[in-house]
Amino acid sequence: MKLSNYFMPTLRETPKEAEIVSHRLMLRAGMVRQETSGIYSWLPLGFSVMKKIEQIVREEQNRAGFVEMLMPTIQPADLWKASGRYDDYGKEMLRISDRHDREMLYGPTNEEMITDICKMGIRSYRDMPVRLYHVQWKFRDEVRPRFGVMRGREFLMKDAYSIDIDKEEARKSYYRQFVAYLRTFERMGLKAIPMAADSGPIGGDMSHEFVVLADTGESAVFCDRELVDMAIPGNDVGYDDDLEKIASEWTSRYAATDEKHDEEKFAAEVPEERRVTARGIEVGHIFYFGTKYSASMGATVQNSSGESVALEMGSYGIGVSRLVAGIIEASHDEAGIIWPASVAPFDIGLINLKAGDQETDEACNSLYQQLENAGVETLYDDTDERAGGKFKNMDLIGLPWQLIVGPRGLKAGEVEIKNRASGERETLSPDAAINMLTAKN
Amino acid sequence: MKLSNYFMPTLRETPKEAEIVSHRLMLRAGMVRQETSGIYSWLPLGFSVMKKIEQIVREEQNRAGFVEMLMPTIQPADLWKASGRYDDYGKEMLRISDRHDREMLYGPTNEEMITDICKMGIRSYRDMPVRLYHVQWKFRDEVRPRFGVMRGREFLMKDAYSIDIDKEEARKSYYRQFVAYLRTFERMGLKAIPMAADSGPIGGDMSHEFVVLADTGESAVFCDRELVDMAIPGNDVGYDDDLEKIASEWTSRYAATDEKHDEEKFAAEVPEERRVTARGIEVGHIFYFGTKYSASMGATVQNSSGESVALEMGSYGIGVSRLVAGIIEASHDEAGIIWPASVAPFDIGLINLKAGDQETDEACNSLYQQLENAGVETLYDDTDERAGGKFKNMDLIGLPWQLIVGPRGLKAGEVEIKNRASGERETLSPDAAINMLTAKN
Repeated sequence: MKLSNYFMPTLRETPKEAEIVSHRLMLRAGMVRQETSGIYSWLPLGFSVMKKIEQIVREEQNRAGFVEMLMPTIQPADLWKASGRYDDYGKEMLRISDRHDREMLYGPTNEEMITDICKMGIRSYRDMPVRLYHVQWKFRDEVRPRFGVMRGREFLMKDAYSIDIDKEEARKSYYRQFVAYLRTFERMGLKAIPMAADSGPIGGDMSHEFVVLADTGESAVFCDRELVDMAIPGNDVGYDDDLEKIASEWTSRYAATDEKHDEEKFAAEVPEERRVTARGIEVGHIFYFGTKYSASMGATVQNSSGESVALEMGSYGIGVSRLVAGIIEASHDEAGIIWPASVAPFDIGLINLKAGDQETDEACNSLYQQLENAGVETLYDDTDERAGGKFKNMDLIGLPWQLIVGPRGLKAGEVEIKNRASGERETLSPDAAINMLTAKN
Repeated sequence: MKLSNYFMPTLRETPKEAEIVSHRLMLRAGMVRQETSGIYSWLPLGFSVMKKIEQIVREEQNRAGFVEMLMPTIQPADLWKASGRYDDYGKEMLRISDRHDREMLYGPTNEEMITDICKMGIRSYRDMPVRLYHVQWKFRDEVRPRFGVMRGREFLMKDAYSIDIDKEEARKSYYRQFVAYLRTFERMGLKAIPMAADSGPIGGDMSHEFVVLADTGESAVFCDRELVDMAIPGNDVGYDDDLEKIASEWTSRYAATDEKHDEEKFAAEVPEERRVTARGIEVGHIFYFGTKYSASMGATVQNSSGESVALEMGSYGIGVSRLVAGIIEASHDEAGIIWPASVAPFDIGLINLKAGDQETDEACNSLYQQLENAGVETLYDDTDERAGGKFKNMDLIGLPWQLIVGPRGLKAGEVEIKNRASGERETLSPDAAINMLTAKN
């Protein structure tokens, strides 16, 4: 992509309303724009990161045997009255009346709807398990939205639902998601720790939060260092196998957020040198809630013995739009964002130090074409901005690699490569640069 | 995908509420489910088709030089008051008050928001052209939603916006979309004809509807047969070249919807043997509206002579969710849907005629693995339903090919392939079947 054909309105000044670093950097890098309190437009750079995150989530959901579908944003209120949650949600629920004064709402989550869909679509225990997910915009009308997309009102969430015939099968579905979550966050370059959690408004029997470690995180977390270093299951993990063993490797070690932290227990269970006190950001939450919705909504099925039983269910959320900010909180420096390669909006930033100079333009065009042809996503700064501004912008938007091309270097047969994370620079021939950059991607 | 792991609640009976064939077939095939009037859940089969359509739209938008972003579903009312359209839309606009009684709405389209974004982000004529699009859910609160997703209230739309410095540049952007639309619909197996249109509530100077020919279409259309047979620009079309020539090849021939049809003009301009009277479905609409929004909203920029000028804009819509139904209207028979290969939810349906029979199961598993490994998307009916039901379901959901495997055939070293569109069947060895099916995909 040539920057002259792109739309990336970066800001030189730090916007005053932004209280946290990810919000500041997303606004400065031209990734998002606030439309009204807690509601954002995703400009091309921010959109691209969000799509890469969504795609990793999708691949890992598919791998774990969950099937994608899509429920609407607007839901009828009746569903929520049937479950009894219509009043529970209070003012956080965005309530809407249509032209015929029918009560509707902008969905904050989808337990009721999926229960209703399964009530219709599951006719026999032989149709189960049913494992579904969708990635859809949600709305929570927070009193005071803040921290940019970290705590927005309209936000993108992946929510998955498992529907099983009995508790044992339901636990298997739960562990599938547990393992899928470990893999999902690892692939985004994050260190996420599962922590036992209150089940909150979703309700239920078993629940884990996945908390990403980041120095600028929203809350304190406490855990055993072994969790930080523990290996993540590979992409050959057998989702049809018993996954409880993997899960209990994680859940048997101490890990708690501020709210659930027990200092005495922490001291008793974890040797001092392994006690980690850090900051964290919640990025995922999984729940096993049994028959909470199926019982109240009459979603039953005959089991193999001919008994009518309520569906055993779980739900599993990941904050996709929130992760864009979460990754920045976990990976940035003074100069700007440092994207992990897997979610970077482009692999490489190509900087033309003297746009308009024929030799430099030709060399840059040739390098750009070679990179694009090799499938390396490249943002080519072909504008006539000054070199200093180009360097600053490229550091700000945080692409993993920079390829810097100017007339003086070209005379010596040289271009420069910079690694954004380490800051290391290397001078080499254009061909060698292409070889190195295409090998890395 | 094994059917036993999928969620595809097909219906034997034709639902009474469905008035048109696409609605009937989508409900029967378990593609969608109505949640409330005009609002649908997309079950896995329907979701998969919609995603394939969306991806074709995306690829052609990118090819035409438009950049993807994403605007939110909920918009502040202020934007619409600034343009003067807040009252124009009447009861079709879903108006919402948040917990602080701020007026908002569920966006039916995004001209105002994109104008406001460009007002902020474009600082100089050198930043232009800006060409953006997004694929987002929209809401129009129709009095009487009907025809399933063909005329739903919550619907998925691709809307693109071009922002140029003057009329001449704006026309170039318009023709880019004109050509991109021809290519987009062709790739979905549709015959779409551009027709001069009223610009309706968007307003403006130049506007074309793209109408797909389908026997069961919603309205009458009249055109020159040459348009039906005209070649579509290839994927090597030069979007930086002058595209007016291609566009005028199309616009110089008679084509009109019912509303704009002029029988006298039709007779005068088109020789009798070339006069086509058919039924059509509107699937896209493009508008050049100049400064309609930029002038009222104060979106101006300095041109190269230093004069302050209002942005010249156009907008370009495609009904993505509506297209799912549109394609079915254009391609079905008595037995069900016939998907064009490019948008089929799976390439092949593999039918096990005797699930539980060891030899048949093994042969099917082997064929399934070979197809999946070759990247051929396969829906494997591994359930214990009777053969008759499996055949009916597979015809109903309309995958391009069926691969039918039973114990009797296997004893003779044979399996059967069926082409869904032609009904042609062929008996051949399992290896030959794999060769044929992988070569086709």
